[in-house]
Amino acid sequence: MINHPEFTVDPWCLHAKNLDLDVLAQTESVFTLANGHVGWRGNLEEGEPHGLPGTYLNGVYELRPLPYAEAGYGYPESGQTIINVTNGKMIRLLVDDEPFDIRYGRMHSHERTLDFRDGVLHRSVEWTSPTGRTVRIKTTRLVSFTQRSIAATYYEVEPVDGPARVVVQSELVTNEQLPRPVGDPRVAVAMDNVLVAERHEALGARVDTVHRTRRSGIRVGAAMDHEVLHPPTYQLSSESTDNLGRVTLAVDLKKGQSLRFVKYVSHGWSAERSLPGVRAQVGAALTAARQTGWEDLLTDQQRYLETFWDRADVEIDGDPELQQAVRFALFHVLQAGARAEGRAIPAKGLTGTGYDGHAFWDTEMFVLPVLTYTQPDAAANALLWRYNTLTRATTRAQQLGLAGAAFPWRSINGSECSGYWPAGTAAFHVNADVADAVVRYLRNTRDVDFSQFVGLPLLVETARLWRSLGHYGPGGEFRIAGVTGPDEYSAVADDNLYTNLMAQQNLQFAAEVAGAHPDRAKQMGVSGEEMADWTAAALAMYVPFDEKLRIHLQAESFSQHQVWDFASTRPIDYPLMLHFPYFDLYRKQVIKQADLVLAMQLRGEMFTDDEKSRNFNYYERLTVRDSSLSACTQGVMAAELGHLDLAYDYLGEASLMDLKDLEHNTRDGLHIASLAGSWITLVYGFGGMREATAVQHFSPRLPSGMHRLKFHIVLRHRRMSVEVTPDSATYLVVEGEPLEITHFGTSLTLTAGQPVTRAVAPPPEREPPQQPVGREPMRRHEPRPRTS
Amino acid sequence: MINHPEFTVDPWCLHAKNLDLDVLAQTESVFTLANGHVGWRGNLEEGEPHGLPGTYLNGVYELRPLPYAEAGYGYPESGQTIINVTNGKMIRLLVDDEPFDIRYGRMHSHERTLDFRDGVLHRSVEWTSPTGRTVRIKTTRLVSFTQRSIAATYYEVEPVDGPARVVVQSELVTNEQLPRPVGDPRVAVAMDNVLVAERHEALGARVDTVHRTRRSGIRVGAAMDHEVLHPPTYQLSSESTDNLGRVTLAVDLKKGQSLRFVKYVSHGWSAERSLPGVRAQVGAALTAARQTGWEDLLTDQQRYLETFWDRADVEIDGDPELQQAVRFALFHVLQAGARAEGRAIPAKGLTGTGYDGHAFWDTEMFVLPVLTYTQPDAAANALLWRYNTLTRATTRAQQLGLAGAAFPWRSINGSECSGYWPAGTAAFHVNADVADAVVRYLRNTRDVDFSQFVGLPLLVETARLWRSLGHYGPGGEFRIAGVTGPDEYSAVADDNLYTNLMAQQNLQFAAEVAGAHPDRAKQMGVSGEEMADWTAAALAMYVPFDEKLRIHLQAESFSQHQVWDFASTRPIDYPLMLHFPYFDLYRKQVIKQADLVLAMQLRGEMFTDDEKSRNFNYYERLTVRDSSLSACTQGVMAAELGHLDLAYDYLGEASLMDLKDLEHNTRDGLHIASLAGSWITLVYGFGGMREATAVQHFSPRLPSGMHRLKFHIVLRHRRMSVEVTPDSATYLVVEGEPLEITHFGTSLTLTAGQPVTRAVAPPPEREPPQQPVGREPMRRHEPRPRTS
Repeated sequence: MINHPEFTVDPWCLHAKNLDLDVLAQTESVFTLANGHVGWRGNLEEGEPHGLPGTYLNGVYELRPLPYAEAGYGYPESGQTIINVTNGKMIRLLVDDEPFDIRYGRMHSHERTLDFRDGVLHRSVEWTSPTGRTVRIKTTRLVSFTQRSIAATYYEVEPVDGPARVVVQSELVTNEQLPRPVGDPRVAVAMDNVLVAERHEALGARVDTVHRTRRSGIRVGAAMDHEVLHPPTYQLSSESTDNLGRVTLAVDLKKGQSLRFVKYVSHGWSAERSLPGVRAQVGAALTAARQTGWEDLLTDQQRYLETFWDRADVEIDGDPELQQAVRFALFHVLQAGARAEGRAIPAKGLTGTGYDGHAFWDTEMFVLPVLTYTQPDAAANALLWRYNTLTRATTRAQQLGLAGAAFPWRSINGSECSGYWPAGTAAFHVNADVADAVVRYLRNTRDVDFSQFVGLPLLVETARLWRSLGHYGPGGEFRIAGVTGPDEYSAVADDNLYTNLMAQQNLQFAAEVAGAHPDRAKQMGVSGEEMADWTAAALAMYVPFDEKLRIHLQAESFSQHQVWDFASTRPIDYPLMLHFPYFDLYRKQVIKQADLVLAMQLRGEMFTDDEKSRNFNYYERLTVRDSSLSACTQGVMAAELGHLDLAYDYLGEASLMDLKDLEHNTRDGLHIASLAGSWITLVYGFGGMREATAVQHFSPRLPSGMHRLKFHIVLRHRRMSVEVTPDSATYLVVEGEPLEITHFGTSLTLTAGQPVTRAVAPPPEREPPQQPVGREPMRRHEPRPRTS
Repeated sequence: MINHPEFTVDPWCLHAKNLDLDVLAQTESVFTLANGHVGWRGNLEEGEPHGLPGTYLNGVYELRPLPYAEAGYGYPESGQTIINVTNGKMIRLLVDDEPFDIRYGRMHSHERTLDFRDGVLHRSVEWTSPTGRTVRIKTTRLVSFTQRSIAATYYEVEPVDGPARVVVQSELVTNEQLPRPVGDPRVAVAMDNVLVAERHEALGARVDTVHRTRRSGIRVGAAMDHEVLHPPTYQLSSESTDNLGRVTLAVDLKKGQSLRFVKYVSHGWSAERSLPGVRAQVGAALTAARQTGWEDLLTDQQRYLETFWDRADVEIDGDPELQQAVRFALFHVLQAGARAEGRAIPAKGLTGTGYDGHAFWDTEMFVLPVLTYTQPDAAANALLWRYNTLTRATTRAQQLGLAGAAFPWRSINGSECSGYWPAGTAAFHVNADVADAVVRYLRNTRDVDFSQFVGLPLLVETARLWRSLGHYGPGGEFRIAGVTGPDEYSAVADDNLYTNLMAQQNLQFAAEVAGAHPDRAKQMGVSGEEMADWTAAALAMYVPFDEKLRIHLQAESFSQHQVWDFASTRPIDYPLMLHFPYFDLYRKQVIKQADLVLAMQLRGEMFTDDEKSRNFNYYERLTVRDSSLSACTQGVMAAELGHLDLAYDYLGEASLMDLKDLEHNTRDGLHIASLAGSWITLVYGFGGMREATAVQHFSPRLPSGMHRLKFHIVLRHRRMSVEVTPDSATYLVVEGEPLEITHFGTSLTLTAGQPVTRAVAPPPEREPPQQPVGREPMRRHEPRPRTS
């Protein structure tokens, strides 16, 4: 039996009323505070018990050898794994010599609240020690959006039932012992004692430490300082050793009197800078934070989030659980990407070690659409990571005998870390996904600097890859053989439709953007001939279609394969990849996650409505959603095709992935892309938003369970909102120049401050799609007649 | 610069006139003595220098974990590696306290001769020690075909230029230190100290030892005894420790006087038997050998080989080098399989550790055709290995979700050891290959017992596999998706033609043989319905064909792929798999080894002559022969299609693979299947032999470099010969009942002792095939006009 944490439903925060140790690790993940640079899992201040202690710095990893039973040319030899750096969360408490540990004594109450508007984690506990002294503890934890190296904790302890001798040990702990990982390949390998101490110093209430990773040679610094607010007198001492920095505060408190202090922690790292350099860096950040002070850090955090929610909030009427879930999702997407600044946005953000802390294609295809319309600078910064790793990608392409750039399937530093090439190296679509994200960002921002200096190089090198990866078939069609698309239950197939259509777009845009910046393009060696060559390949791109079934094919010959025997597959056989060999999955018609359906969302103009409907129904009955990157896409297309209640079910699944721990692995970190996917289903699905170069399209429609949906986005530098009811849609540009959009294909010009309302037509009647037996999404609400 | 050993050309032996230390390991491989049960590499008696010390027992292996960078369901967790067991070859010599070591002092002569008729390895050395004493040493080494546990060495040393004090240390050495392996994945992993001592005892001139492998728990025994022939008096002592048994002989020899003795060594092993049991087993074998005595061991060996050559000899006029090569090949094929008796015949026989000592499909498809017609019992015994491992194969099939048996791609004990599934598990054709070998053996021997008790279970379980692996497509055709054929530069393709045609035959024969043994079949649960189901699937088998190119396809869509850029591929880029990623090889038209061409040899009736010719020419220009399992097949089909000189070139390549070390890895062991392939090219190629249920077909034709070819085979229990000249073929049944065969399709009845001669028609004129640039086989002889 698997427990799940219970949260109360609240529109603006996540609140856990009790502490269930069986699901401690899950709650640590959902209560993570991060800013894209530093991530603090929601571990208890006192350190123990814990599920998975975690403090992460974006870009800090250790190397490890990748072993192969049978080696092959071009296999990556070295893997990267995110590491738990120095833990600054630790605040041990002793009450009359008795350590505060919730497993002992008696706990009267334990509450945690993550506030999406304040951006802090509150905790309050009332506990009686084994020796009978009762204390109240309150903490507020913050990882700052405005000072990206800084985290801080406000700590308060008060004896309730009499005087107490209270000792607090506030620590920096390095090389914590971590729980051993289980056998699931999606879980990270363990990394013990990877940090080698370089120096440490304790001075008054301040301690700093610098370590270096054993193999990757990355220098990691951490420092802490303390501000005691009350009482005015206390005993303070500090010490430091290789793996421990400690400041000890001791006070005698009367009943009702409290000890209150703030712990400031600063993190820093560098692969290049010297020991004094890194030490200076964390020291400066710490001093700056002390200068700002706790109250102002809180205010800055609130203001930062206020600005964010103004641009990004999504309001839902009729489904409080989803209202909470979508804000939870947006908050964590922001936490993953806000201050990544040239580093990757990993699949799990900085919330856990799942997937070794690697970033995948989901950044570009699921996370960046959200950031592009809510926090465009963060989207640009994430693409900057790809740009920064372009040399590694071109080197990799050369190793593979290809031109241009081959971005890694999974990586932290930009080098390929995938140890299984059919689902790694062969998944070349990641390159077109990067290009797609570049184009989305450029369409929305028209950012000329980015276009020239980041976008163009990314588009050119990925276009070159496609040109060399594909070839012209005997009929003059441009084909891409032997690659793997998004669906991980197929691999190494010819002419994966998703890949071909995304590569086509990649080639077209490269030619277009190179044409827009002829001088920059020339510097990159792009000739008119090369541009024409890209365009020609794009025009000749082969799109596999089954004339008999009248459906597009996920890949050449796909429909020839045997259909998976769903009837004989038991619920416990899912996820299939843990119970069946790849060999069997690959050769049968069974789909892990949206592949062709995603292509229909992204390249909708390439399909007629009838084709979309037939394709959707065909692939829907093969798709088992063993990946968290599927429900949202199925939701978007279901909504487009008028299957609104089905789309609503998928929205529920995408949104509650982590809050309900649907895949039983939230303990390893959040599914950032699935969380992003809940926004995608709302905005692209029920909002019917689609991108094009000239104007943004909207074709909104609500499912029966939702009374009202209002989403805020930043579109071409205007803050705007779209409000949808069962019968109408209201578009409003809050500020900025007039903006043209379309509503169900009809052009509208929006002027700031003047809402425009248009009627929403009922959805077309179409044959309802079917899922594989037992893989239907959970019904969110029974459809009920509309009351309008 | 790579050296190659130089051998003199001699029809009946292999003679090395000198000792080149740079190629010591290669000569150790070619001078290996083995009987299919025990293998002794041609290491020098004195132990050092060595290339790779090697003593192998068929079936003795150590387990090792198979690591994966990313694990997957159904991946084998444990690998098996052949180990170097106790070395009984060691005979150290000290001349006046100076160890005999050819790296010191002065060597006047060093000769080694492997005699194919005597089955022994002679060595003679004349050497002057650093202190100036010259001795002559002669040894004769034998691994007995008639007493399969026994090896023996006759040793003679004589001072040439004055008296000498001679000490001989004859040893049993366990856990020898082995050279570290290089990076090539085809080389075995190192296994140090895998044998744990269980007991040892020295008594007089006799020592025995028993060890046990550390993880696989196999008990290995070795014992030695000594018979001193001259002089009558000598000093003898013996000793034993965990890893060393030693008998020391000391004599003072006058000039011209010699020390002569025989060392008898017995090997034994068991995974089941107790320590006393194994000890008794090697002791008994040793005593039996002493009872036989050296001279009779020699005579028995000679007689065994006389019988073999009577049935198996191949005579070639006009090409002495090939004459030697084919006998060398036959001798080593016999050594690999003669006494395997229910164990596998590994890819390298017992000549080295290459490929970890694993057996592959090459046993059934290359080695067993030779043994079936020259040593049929050995063929039956090799198939018995498959039968003995049937339970492992059915368990593996279950694990993969399949019915019947899934034989391993590579194994020693019958469990899958392949750590790369696209080239391992997916290569299901191994199962049809086993069935093919069963059918070949049954057709030749009509062995009813074998048919019922070994053949039927193998055919039934493999047919069941195919029935569950394939599926009916929408057009009613039976398809086999996502499997790998023989060509290792393609993988996981749909409807590999070779696999489909071989599976078809497998299904057909299973139904046929089950029909012939209805009671046995019933015991296996085979119903009439199941048999009909097999036949139906066989009849509906899909055979991919490209209507436009009018060629058969190696697999569905194969001709859509880009053709490999041979023009830009440099000679040093071969073998391609060491310089290009699988991903790129798989998706392009480039072929490592005969695949469809092998199907044309084995299932010739499924193709018209025109199709064969077009297919051959199409695939010939894509085939790079980076595998040693290709030249012979290309040779057979080239001969059939009339490209006789090309076939001759391929014959040269197959035959000289190891004598000329064409792939630079003979040091790791001989390419037994390629050696078998030289016979295949001669008999199936120039002899034009093809099997059918009713009669054997012959359509012989010689290349211009060959004046006469005569081969002896055992066909349906008759010893027969086929003698081919440029103009005619003469068939002779040496003894036995009359036999019907066909000569170019015309029926002939052969009566014992009455040769029948028929004319050979000139080959048809056909467009000459072309190979990829730079991958043409070496021309064996310039074509010259026939003088007839």
